Amino acid sequence: MNVRSGHEALRTMLNPKRVAVIGVSREGFGFGRGILLSLMAMKFDGELFPVNPRGGEIAGMTIYETVDAIPCPIDFAVIAVPASQVPQALEECRLKGAAGAEILSSGFDETGTDEGRILGDRLREVVGRGIRVLGPNCFGVYSPSCGLTMLPGPDLSREPGNVAFVSQSGGMSIDLAHMGKWKGIRFSAVVSFGNGIDVRETELLEYFRDDPATGVIGMYMEGVERGGDFFRTLRGASEKKPVVICKGGLSEAGGRAVASHTASMGGSRVIWESMFRQCNIIQAKNIGELSDALLALTMLPRRSYRGAAIIGGGGALGVAAADAAEALGMVIPPLEEGIRDAIDPLLPRPGSSSRNPIDIANPYVSPDNIRRIMIEASRDERIDIHVIIQLLYHYGALAATLGRDSVKGLVPFRELADAVSGAVSATGKPAVLVIPNFKRGAEALDIEEAMRETRREFLARGIPVFDELEEALFAVSCVSLWCGRRMRRGGDSVPTPR
Amino acid sequence: MNVRSGHEALRTMLNPKRVAVIGVSREGFGFGRGILLSLMAMKFDGELFPVNPRGGEIAGMTIYETVDAIPCPIDFAVIAVPASQVPQALEECRLKGAAGAEILSSGFDETGTDEGRILGDRLREVVGRGIRVLGPNCFGVYSPSCGLTMLPGPDLSREPGNVAFVSQSGGMSIDLAHMGKWKGIRFSAVVSFGNGIDVRETELLEYFRDDPATGVIGMYMEGVERGGDFFRTLRGASEKKPVVICKGGLSEAGGRAVASHTASMGGSRVIWESMFRQCNIIQAKNIGELSDALLALTMLPRRSYRGAAIIGGGGALGVAAADAAEALGMVIPPLEEGIRDAIDPLLPRPGSSSRNPIDIANPYVSPDNIRRIMIEASRDERIDIHVIIQLLYHYGALAATLGRDSVKGLVPFRELADAVSGAVSATGKPAVLVIPNFKRGAEALDIEEAMRETRREFLARGIPVFDELEEALFAVSCVSLWCGRRMRRGGDSVPTPR
Repeated sequence: MNVRSGHEALRTMLNPKRVAVIGVSREGFGFGRGILLSLMAMKFDGELFPVNPRGGEIAGMTIYETVDAIPCPIDFAVIAVPASQVPQALEECRLKGAAGAEILSSGFDETGTDEGRILGDRLREVVGRGIRVLGPNCFGVYSPSCGLTMLPGPDLSREPGNVAFVSQSGGMSIDLAHMGKWKGIRFSAVVSFGNGIDVRETELLEYFRDDPATGVIGMYMEGVERGGDFFRTLRGASEKKPVVICKGGLSEAGGRAVASHTASMGGSRVIWESMFRQCNIIQAKNIGELSDALLALTMLPRRSYRGAAIIGGGGALGVAAADAAEALGMVIPPLEEGIRDAIDPLLPRPGSSSRNPIDIANPYVSPDNIRRIMIEASRDERIDIHVIIQLLYHYGALAATLGRDSVKGLVPFRELADAVSGAVSATGKPAVLVIPNFKRGAEALDIEEAMRETRREFLARGIPVFDELEEALFAVSCVSLWCGRRMRRGGDSVPTPR
Repeated sequence: MNVRSGHEALRTMLNPKRVAVIGVSREGFGFGRGILLSLMAMKFDGELFPVNPRGGEIAGMTIYETVDAIPCPIDFAVIAVPASQVPQALEECRLKGAAGAEILSSGFDETGTDEGRILGDRLREVVGRGIRVLGPNCFGVYSPSCGLTMLPGPDLSREPGNVAFVSQSGGMSIDLAHMGKWKGIRFSAVVSFGNGIDVRETELLEYFRDDPATGVIGMYMEGVERGGDFFRTLRGASEKKPVVICKGGLSEAGGRAVASHTASMGGSRVIWESMFRQCNIIQAKNIGELSDALLALTMLPRRSYRGAAIIGGGGALGVAAADAAEALGMVIPPLEEGIRDAIDPLLPRPGSSSRNPIDIANPYVSPDNIRRIMIEASRDERIDIHVIIQLLYHYGALAATLGRDSVKGLVPFRELADAVSGAVSATGKPAVLVIPNFKRGAEALDIEEAMRETRREFLARGIPVFDELEEALFAVSCVSLWCGRRMRRGGDSVPTPR
């Protein structure tokens, strides 16, 4: 199969019109029934055809006894029957015109048994006759623009975005899809390919490299097939778009676990990490770093950010900020005297500092003063970005001191978002928000609520939000890393005498 | 002043009966007024005497115009007046019989100005006449047993515990005090000593080493005075009780920030880290690690935990667990065949695994099956501890699928806590719970609520709870580290021929 036709099949699989869901029981928590109900809850744009040999009805829809009994051609199928029945089901989908299928079932090569390998071979035979497969042992595709969803995703966002996420692990893909919803990451697609008997990392990377709706690519990888092809594709993709990769199983024990999870070879840390450096890949250690990097790459202008103005307060702010910045190649330059003089009157007394970090000392500094501090700080040309830390959790103490029942109404989250957004527009220097929460008791849900509202207001204005200062600086540095290395790479291409 | 009398003064300062709060304005958000209202909100056990030259009343109490006007001796004072007035206020407290005072005000040596240094010298003169001082530039003392609280802490827990926390940073101490409340860390005391003009790290460490109410000591440090004394005290303290230290400013830039934060010398990374190793200190990189370590050291039996049974699910569970365990010197041994055979019938199909990690595949496995899986797994003698991962956030999808408005009532948190606790009792092998939340949208507060209830139920049964698997394994490894090195140290003391 050539790449072109692969692209077309993948395009159909990510945006199908007629989808068979094979293995839908009328009750219980089975995968087939779960994904059908999820597709309905997501208001999938196309038509759905549940299939189960026992027939019957579900949620007012006919359950077809066979794929063949569906009264029209299909273009995609979700297969969730026991492994032994999957090859036959896949063949029926092919005969029914499907461009591809996602196979949720497990029980193939990853079992390490003869039976599993034989079933895997039978799948590969059907694929060879002309149908593309995601999986087996995957969670499927989440495609917000058409409402295709993965397992268990009845409540993912329908709002499309420019992040593509490709994952060998189903759990990682559904976790990131859920995180994206509140964290402000919107997806062109999330694709879980599990054991990857057919469609795998290299082809998906090619697809999203060329996909005009995709601006950033994230990947969770365990192993790789055809390493040379992957390396070349990765280097080319990263020239066009930032690629963030979380590689699981870099330890020895992790490598052994990879073999049993997705039946693929892990490879050594040194090989992977050299490849990442050579291809200008942003490496994420876990799903938290992955999501932080994707968010920053989506929301921040693509530039190098070296100097940060840190505006906020909290435990050992200056020391922690300096430690974190140095580790990431950033600096927190003490502001020029003239600028400090302009900031000082905007700060409460005592305990504040206009040096940088600008310690606002008191958690209740007015949004307008925050705005004015940002505008002053950005006059220092060494400042490339503002990092605003708001200790909203202290509003709990304020509420207690004032004898109020709840912090709601005390936190000026909309005014704060407007103020920060206004300063970003006025200065042309972006901002990120950090809202740590050290108060997460069962009695403090009101603080959590106020923080979530705050997050939403900032995200709506295009300002990324993080839980911790270290996470914010890491995310900012990912943008710099991609831009900086890419520029240097451009420089490298000028011929130099030898 | 000899150590003995120092101990007595400190004992009074952490458990005072009559406290003057100096610098209480009738309105606004000043430190003095804030701490007075906080002490009242905390129902401080002793008597409070607000002081302000303007006099008047606050919350039904007389504001005394001078310390001398207080109609009885005092034993402790909170000083929150401008720096220039602090030496005089401290002298008045000394004359009024106070054993010590905490000085919240800043504006002394840390300013780097002549004026600041002169004020610092004047403070030291008063101290020399016989009163002990915490601060200046600190947040004070939180002492749950008597209700003494720090700034801004009107809503900290009154339940005492066995963790002492000593911090150069006020922000770090109040953040950890708040975290402890919901995280399950209960304190004998939290002491912020700021610039540490008098009482400092070494003396506080001696005090808590000898304090029968303290079983674990946490410290946030930036710099140190009299390094040799500190080293010797630290080594002795760590022989008796685990000591966890977060050292801020280990980077070069961080070291410079230390100088301006608490006017102390930071020292190099290599010196600090060798000292930690030589003294068997548990090192925490940030407040998150610090709190995780303290929690585990409080709740888990003090043993070495090498082999973990991981029971749960989630993104690339096995791979992530293996990577994390290896980095911490732990193992996740594949269970013996006979044990796997006993576990298999307790697992749902498909996608589960009894290997270890025991992948329960489906987030809705019954509490009783979790209990039985734990009992089976612990029959493998290589298993020292159970790590239970519950993906409670998936109950949101379940609620959506079932058409319910809320997850409340769906999550069997009490049954789960009983089941895990029952298995711990039955096997004598402890457990920790991990409840990651990938669903933190404004619309998903019900999930947050269910997770907080779950946390509370587990903590009430003495089972520590963490957000992420990596954090849980780190915390467990801290207990092993202290116990293991201590045992080896004991071995070293046996004379060996040379």
